Amino acid sequence: MARWEPNARGRLRDAAMDLYAERGYEQTTVADIAERAGLTARTFFRHFADKREVLFGGSLQLEELMVAAAEAVPADAPPMRAVIAALEATAEPLGQDQPHSRRRQALITATPELQERELIKLATLSAALGAALRRRGVPEPEASLAAETGIAVFRVAWERWLDAGEERPLADVIREAVGRFETLVAAA
Amino acid sequence: MARWEPNARGRLRDAAMDLYAERGYEQTTVADIAERAGLTARTFFRHFADKREVLFGGSLQLEELMVAAAEAVPADAPPMRAVIAALEATAEPLGQDQPHSRRRQALITATPELQERELIKLATLSAALGAALRRRGVPEPEASLAAETGIAVFRVAWERWLDAGEERPLADVIREAVGRFETLVAAA
Repeated sequence: MARWEPNARGRLRDAAMDLYAERGYEQTTVADIAERAGLTARTFFRHFADKREVLFGGSLQLEELMVAAAEAVPADAPPMRAVIAALEATAEPLGQDQPHSRRRQALITATPELQERELIKLATLSAALGAALRRRGVPEPEASLAAETGIAVFRVAWERWLDAGEERPLADVIREAVGRFETLVAAA
Repeated sequence: MARWEPNARGRLRDAAMDLYAERGYEQTTVADIAERAGLTARTFFRHFADKREVLFGGSLQLEELMVAAAEAVPADAPPMRAVIAALEATAEPLGQDQPHSRRRQALITATPELQERELIKLATLSAALGAALRRRGVPEPEASLAAETGIAVFRVAWERWLDAGEERPLADVIREAVGRFETLVAAA
């Protein structure tokens, strides 16, 4: 019988982040994480599929949120407006915990396997957003262009928000990146 | 003593592509490729670091070419003009052999390890282009925004050029993608 484990998910996540930083990602096992959190491996697997999932859990919810935001934009709005709405919708869930996100980013930067996973996550988001645009009747190559370049803008904003000393809310950093992107393209 | 092997690199590449298609990428060894090409493994390693390199050789030259094209644009031109020049410079070397590029793309699409490698290659190109823009005096986040979105446009154009039935030269497909991208952003 499973005991009730208060905030097991959060404890596992914090234990994993500590161990990844101390020992490196490759050298940390699920058993190590569970032990550090004072929980069992079985409890770990109720919350995460594997040790990578600790860092990438929530990808599917993020995708659904972005697609829903793009779909909520009036049908006659230009495609890039739907993409920008999708980017802005990420600010609320992703902008909550800057210290955790910075630790996560440092780990990804230091670990090629995690960099690959992050790039695949972003490519998956772009594909989902492109599909959402095609469902809105946007033709190709416009749907892919809007989705790919939108995710590129998101990536720059996200990394900028994680820079040391950046104190603005994520929503502001995203809005700034979108604005500067539009100015850059207009100037060309 | 090494014998002179006429067109060894091309023979190895063709043998590798055939075997990857017949057996799958993972199931093919360097020894298999050398044998099929009628050459030795030692000759293989004179031309490629490993079996993945058969598909990704030339990445560094591509990066150098794009950076040189961006640097050749007049210093007072807008950043996106330098990025567009870098994209257009790829058309000549990359647009030579559409049948080979289509086989390569099909293999990448079917092989997660190769998809990851391709994403890393594109991220590396974007980082090199961003660095070239910063050397031109372009500040952040503009340098990263221009480089990332430029590579996103390139990726869409490249995949479009590889679509079945696409018969235009790569240069035309890139120019079309750039034009539609600018129209999309202007409309937002």
